[in-house]
Amino acid sequence: MEPIDFRTEPARYRHWKIDVDGEIAFLVMDVDPAGGLSGDYELKLNSYDLAVDIELNDAVQRLRFEHPEVRAVVIKSGKDNVFCAGANIRMLGRASHGHKVNFCKFTNETRLAIEDASEHSRQIYLAAVNGSCAGGGYELALAADHIMLVDDRRSTVALPETPLLAVLPGTGGLTRVTDKRKVRRDLADVFCTTEEGVRGQKAVEWRLVDEVVTKSRWDDAVRARAKQLAARSDRPRGDGKGVTLSPLERRSENGGIAYSHVRIEIERERGVAGIVVRGPPQAAPASADAAQALGASFWPLAIARELEDAILNLRFNEPKLGVLVLRTEGDGEAVLDHDRFLAAQQHHWLMREIRHYLKRVFKRLDVTARSLIALIEPGSCFAGSLAELAFAADRSLMLIGTREGDNRPPAAVALGEANFGLYPMGNALTRLATRFLGEPQSLERAKEKIGTPLEAEAAEALGLVTAAIEDFDWDDELRVMIEERTSFSPDALSAMEANLRFAGPETMETKIFGRLTAWQNWVFQRPNAVGAEGALKRYGSGIQPSFDRERT
Amino acid sequence: MEPIDFRTEPARYRHWKIDVDGEIAFLVMDVDPAGGLSGDYELKLNSYDLAVDIELNDAVQRLRFEHPEVRAVVIKSGKDNVFCAGANIRMLGRASHGHKVNFCKFTNETRLAIEDASEHSRQIYLAAVNGSCAGGGYELALAADHIMLVDDRRSTVALPETPLLAVLPGTGGLTRVTDKRKVRRDLADVFCTTEEGVRGQKAVEWRLVDEVVTKSRWDDAVRARAKQLAARSDRPRGDGKGVTLSPLERRSENGGIAYSHVRIEIERERGVAGIVVRGPPQAAPASADAAQALGASFWPLAIARELEDAILNLRFNEPKLGVLVLRTEGDGEAVLDHDRFLAAQQHHWLMREIRHYLKRVFKRLDVTARSLIALIEPGSCFAGSLAELAFAADRSLMLIGTREGDNRPPAAVALGEANFGLYPMGNALTRLATRFLGEPQSLERAKEKIGTPLEAEAAEALGLVTAAIEDFDWDDELRVMIEERTSFSPDALSAMEANLRFAGPETMETKIFGRLTAWQNWVFQRPNAVGAEGALKRYGSGIQPSFDRERT
Repeated sequence: MEPIDFRTEPARYRHWKIDVDGEIAFLVMDVDPAGGLSGDYELKLNSYDLAVDIELNDAVQRLRFEHPEVRAVVIKSGKDNVFCAGANIRMLGRASHGHKVNFCKFTNETRLAIEDASEHSRQIYLAAVNGSCAGGGYELALAADHIMLVDDRRSTVALPETPLLAVLPGTGGLTRVTDKRKVRRDLADVFCTTEEGVRGQKAVEWRLVDEVVTKSRWDDAVRARAKQLAARSDRPRGDGKGVTLSPLERRSENGGIAYSHVRIEIERERGVAGIVVRGPPQAAPASADAAQALGASFWPLAIARELEDAILNLRFNEPKLGVLVLRTEGDGEAVLDHDRFLAAQQHHWLMREIRHYLKRVFKRLDVTARSLIALIEPGSCFAGSLAELAFAADRSLMLIGTREGDNRPPAAVALGEANFGLYPMGNALTRLATRFLGEPQSLERAKEKIGTPLEAEAAEALGLVTAAIEDFDWDDELRVMIEERTSFSPDALSAMEANLRFAGPETMETKIFGRLTAWQNWVFQRPNAVGAEGALKRYGSGIQPSFDRERT
Repeated sequence: MEPIDFRTEPARYRHWKIDVDGEIAFLVMDVDPAGGLSGDYELKLNSYDLAVDIELNDAVQRLRFEHPEVRAVVIKSGKDNVFCAGANIRMLGRASHGHKVNFCKFTNETRLAIEDASEHSRQIYLAAVNGSCAGGGYELALAADHIMLVDDRRSTVALPETPLLAVLPGTGGLTRVTDKRKVRRDLADVFCTTEEGVRGQKAVEWRLVDEVVTKSRWDDAVRARAKQLAARSDRPRGDGKGVTLSPLERRSENGGIAYSHVRIEIERERGVAGIVVRGPPQAAPASADAAQALGASFWPLAIARELEDAILNLRFNEPKLGVLVLRTEGDGEAVLDHDRFLAAQQHHWLMREIRHYLKRVFKRLDVTARSLIALIEPGSCFAGSLAELAFAADRSLMLIGTREGDNRPPAAVALGEANFGLYPMGNALTRLATRFLGEPQSLERAKEKIGTPLEAEAAEALGLVTAAIEDFDWDDELRVMIEERTSFSPDALSAMEANLRFAGPETMETKIFGRLTAWQNWVFQRPNAVGAEGALKRYGSGIQPSFDRERT
């Protein structure tokens, strides 16, 4: 199969259109039925597959970076009488288990990015549901801050997955119904088992939508509501000029992929991919304006984009590379310098965007179903924001002293303010706070070391790395560890990691990736859904699915 | 297959022994290898199956009710050099998916009951790990408040499920390691992938156990520690006499099961079971002593035991009955009267036990993978604690007025203080607070109605029932609803209900039943674990499992 490419841009969109009108943008869904990732299915009725969601993700991102003037975003349909029919069922019926799981993960991340835009970029999303809206369509609407439904005696919102397809509304649907919309649980039960959905005033009373509006008042009402949401925004206007997310350059290199500051190294036989992030090639700019002038080549923005593309690429196109080895190269002080700059300029819209973008990219790592191992060696720059890579890893190994035949100084880890609040995980704690849940004094001790380069034994004593290892043991330890890891069941590892990475409190986000997704993955393996006589396979065939009636 | 019977008593135990020595009880695990539920496997090395856990559950329960004098419980092994080898692997390898899932649910409930005993009965558990302790064995230890490990240079604690069996430590193991013991995530990763486990001082440093003690000091140290835990207990001593949990009487009745106050009605063709709970046959006793004199026949204790047995029985022995219809019969005022009595006597050890027992039974309902429908009809007594049955249900239907040809007065729901704190769900909120998460004012409004019988339309207006239905619609509505429900995929329903029932905050308990269990259920469906070449099937065969190396 062709590798999946996550890079796109509005000029190439086949499914979405961005119409910017002053402080309001309209994000118009108008899916090209023939524009799916595969020719095996038609994307009718604004149903979607990954190709559609790749564009949506790109659009949400570009609105933040390229349109600082936009304060409210209206998601609407470009088709008559249908808002969105949800994920394409034929696509789901034919997709491999792994593709289903990764498709849902990506679409979940996109929905969360929409919520992140409303909350942190203060580009507040409004779902203008101007037609029937089912399954993933309603889940898309649920990601908005405000949902309007047209009252035409016909348009409904619905989550028909369980009655119709024997699966869950797994793109956050069940969790947002109970935890965001806070729909009463018995009404949620009725709603989620009513194929035809709910419309009109009842949808408001049940808290499924915020308002219903008649067709004649629709356009005016949507615009008025968008203006009202825009007025709630505190988005800094700056000079109104955005930063163009220029096409991401990458090239093949020794069987891997090289970006400007990031590269992927592939060891196919061992089942390992290396992700190497290079530190800033220069000092932080003198001012926010100077940083903005650098545009997409400004280092923190560039690595966010490149690292994100690398992660998505490995998730979808390299499922057999079960271990990701995370490394860095460069000058730790330059990383800390950029971190301080970003933190100091948080009132500037662009610096705020970059910080939240990096936050989202690190979160993508947290939910990536691969074993993550950070190697901290001479020449590395695990400092400040790049140290988050080590804290996101399942394990981190640090070399003590220097390597024979290498005259670079010993590796050091350096903490910055960035590690104590800029990049929370999905559980709303920092990676360090999660790490030290059982020993809050270690968190305090670490804080006292901000700015101090910490060599291996010091870092180990502070609990910042899993193990400090001598040069003469390094290669063997590493080889054995990776051989062992890749010998275990990939599924058991994915499930184990998904649990161990998220200690402590839960948020709607962790509930979506933990509880809801795990249940959906289970359902995606059950014959009642995916067997030859299951609902996903039989959908559209005219033959009823045949279910094993045993409850577990 | 023989139906599984959850009733047992110490005289019939084959795997456990209770030794009470004043305020300390020793709960000794000494599994009879030939005493498993099936003859297909031998329970070597204190490994366990459901038969062993049924006895453990019974023992934990009896210690609370029959031994008010016991303030600390020491779990230890009766075998040399082995504490417990965990769930029996051959049993797991041969069990159906449904049995695996229900086995884990029950063992999880037993572990949580141990924690509930430490916290609420103040019978504080100590795990005295006097030998190797792996998998479910360590998960049992994790349920204790304090873990002691013998330091004999050989005994380890271990969670070898992932490396050895390609499954998870799913009886709370992963969650308790991160959220109860608060082991640092990277050390947890190392621990959970190290087949041979961790011993000695390192186990203490990693927070896996609380202390290690040499063999020569072992017995004295365990006793001293138990005495110290007992001293922390505030367990009311009363007169030191317990209540004997006499054998639970039940008989077959019209294809169902009848207990003294509870009955199960089975409609096999429709896939429905009714659970009918009868209200108190008499007024509340005059005093706590009078209640204690009633012993196991005291109404709240009797219904807790009977309802629990009914739930477990349906879960394991009737997997094809996908809908449980919950009904009550009797006098609501008598229920409220008993509730008030229990609440007023909370300083009495027995009344406290009964309240927490009822709490646990209602929680069993919350995690039961069946659609729960409450029917509130004339003659019912959904009042106070019995109203929790309606609030635990996925939907509740209430009949408006009287039924034709039935001269009983219209049905009424009555709230009591019990509904506002006595019986929290696993998420630590009451069922009403969870229900009204989005409308706290409804919670307040409901509270104002404490003690007032609420007929159907009033109950519906207050949001206490899903729908109030007229007599002439009742039979049809009910028939259609049940036919529809039983036509859906049982798996999709189980997963949907597991999500919708637990809105709001998460606790270790909800993380175990939500996140951890859902991931384990997924793993239990993956060929890498359960396929012909999977690790569970190949265990002990001398042939390595063969894994699909794709990550999802």
